[in-house]
Amino acid sequence: MSEQMQKIVLASRPDGTPTQENFRLETGDIPTPGEGEILVKVHYMSLDPYMRGRMDDAKSYAQPVPVGGLMEGGSVGEVIASNSPDFKPGDYAFGMFGWATHGVAQAQMCRKVDPDQAPITTSLGVLGMPGFTGWFGLNEYGRPKKGETLVVAAATGPVGSMVGQLAKSMGLRAVGIAGGADKCALAKSEFGFDECLDHRAYDDAKSLRAALKEACPDGIDIYYENVGGKVLEAVMPLMNPHGRIPICGMIAWYNAGGLGAGAAEEALTAPKLWRTILVNFLSVNGFIISNHWKRFPEFLQEVAPQVADGRIAVKEDITEGLENAPQAFIDLLTGGNFGKAIVKVA
Amino acid sequence: MSEQMQKIVLASRPDGTPTQENFRLETGDIPTPGEGEILVKVHYMSLDPYMRGRMDDAKSYAQPVPVGGLMEGGSVGEVIASNSPDFKPGDYAFGMFGWATHGVAQAQMCRKVDPDQAPITTSLGVLGMPGFTGWFGLNEYGRPKKGETLVVAAATGPVGSMVGQLAKSMGLRAVGIAGGADKCALAKSEFGFDECLDHRAYDDAKSLRAALKEACPDGIDIYYENVGGKVLEAVMPLMNPHGRIPICGMIAWYNAGGLGAGAAEEALTAPKLWRTILVNFLSVNGFIISNHWKRFPEFLQEVAPQVADGRIAVKEDITEGLENAPQAFIDLLTGGNFGKAIVKVA
Repeated sequence: MSEQMQKIVLASRPDGTPTQENFRLETGDIPTPGEGEILVKVHYMSLDPYMRGRMDDAKSYAQPVPVGGLMEGGSVGEVIASNSPDFKPGDYAFGMFGWATHGVAQAQMCRKVDPDQAPITTSLGVLGMPGFTGWFGLNEYGRPKKGETLVVAAATGPVGSMVGQLAKSMGLRAVGIAGGADKCALAKSEFGFDECLDHRAYDDAKSLRAALKEACPDGIDIYYENVGGKVLEAVMPLMNPHGRIPICGMIAWYNAGGLGAGAAEEALTAPKLWRTILVNFLSVNGFIISNHWKRFPEFLQEVAPQVADGRIAVKEDITEGLENAPQAFIDLLTGGNFGKAIVKVA
Repeated sequence: MSEQMQKIVLASRPDGTPTQENFRLETGDIPTPGEGEILVKVHYMSLDPYMRGRMDDAKSYAQPVPVGGLMEGGSVGEVIASNSPDFKPGDYAFGMFGWATHGVAQAQMCRKVDPDQAPITTSLGVLGMPGFTGWFGLNEYGRPKKGETLVVAAATGPVGSMVGQLAKSMGLRAVGIAGGADKCALAKSEFGFDECLDHRAYDDAKSLRAALKEACPDGIDIYYENVGGKVLEAVMPLMNPHGRIPICGMIAWYNAGGLGAGAAEEALTAPKLWRTILVNFLSVNGFIISNHWKRFPEFLQEVAPQVADGRIAVKEDITEGLENAPQAFIDLLTGGNFGKAIVKVA
């Protein structure tokens, strides 16, 4: 009998926030790597907000996961078989192996991870897709200048904390937004934000805006957008002329009846949003990091040394066991995690 | 008794579309130019959609016109007195002289107009602010590439017709939108648009979108935004990945209870708009041309020869008499004009 593997598939499409019933744990044979492929035994798997989007069948930049299909995701583990000269058994590889204990992929679609440079978990967060997303969006579309003010939500998450720390290192004022007093404390103590506001402490966009106004006495020059919803509504009237808004996500709207389909924020109308862009000469850019991998080496070269010497802090929230991934993912979407959400698979 | 001048002041702030009652014709003394100033007898005055914004006291990029104050606007005329070495009597000057028969301004804030290069009316349109707005927004934020598809509304207006003609000259497919079959015919015959849709022929954004989809079989790469409203709603789902949207105005929303304050388009929610920017990696840039005058000489150098030899067509809609400016302006806002709206003052 061949060795078995476990994986989590999409049992049904969620209506709003996913529940345990939307996922199913299955057992199957470990696949055999084909030409140019590697087989990896996964050690750590990443949980990221974008995965919520893949659970819907709305038109998006990526194909939805089919019902019954393997949940999509990046993970890092040990190569146990290789049909590629680029990897040998014992190497560590990052790839899109899905929510599973084992996976095969084309070697050229995987990235070698050096366990001596940093713990391999960092390839999922601060030195992986989320960290790169923060670095790229801030530099490419945020165009930060010393003395400016930046606001980012999910400030203790892997994207927000990267954005805030990079902004601080470039001489900006960095104001974070996070869910809960403990996260706000962490944003300041661990990630160096000048201020961090607990969005749960404000009933509506208006009161959050009043607090933001105090935290940003010179207005907001860069709003790094990763949440949408109440935070966006609070931020928009405070944007300075010539402000920049990179958009990499809008987690607050992901659960509102399909990706942003709902009128979650009735007060923020499309005309109002559009007018703010016009009258403040804003630059708004949507992007997905997978279109920009060619700049990953530049990112790694610049940021890896800062992670190694502690200038950029690492905060991870590790859940044990693949079978606990669905709950950890639900927690992530509802703000229950504390740092980069990771599942220890083996 | 000194010579008298006439001017039009803002009598009251409009509620929605302006009416005659919002304007008042007044008579007064012709002012005397001070140090460094010139006195101009206005020949032609420009009417532009942005003036509607100045009539509200909502926060905008410019100060509102105070009630009782001179309506703001650019005009061109003959210098009749000068305290500046840069102008002598008999020269023609463009300046912000307002809705008036005469005006004084600092010479350095005015632009000399050469009547031998082109008719002086072109300094208000195709070779003035509107033409420059089209040229700058298209090149700076639209980043046109041969073979792409561009959509612009108010296609026979001075901005839209410039955008369409420049796009054609760069090898793009140019699809216009205009109000009325006669304007659509003009857009194609005079300005060379590949297609032009009459937005009045479509009851809602959905049917307009279906027609646009046919006119743009390869999707839309650049939407030069100058109207907002139904057109924006029709366009957004057709935007191609990595599309660009320069925003220079949103005339459809100017009258909706203050600048875009109303929920004119209930179907286009803020989350939907934001999501489209994200999932199609759009680049959206608001701008006002007055921040970019330093590039005006470059524009003039490139475009004036094309106007002179007819490669870029000129279409003007000239109303006689300052006293008829309010009605001509109301017509402009409701689409009643045919080409660049100009008032012949003297």
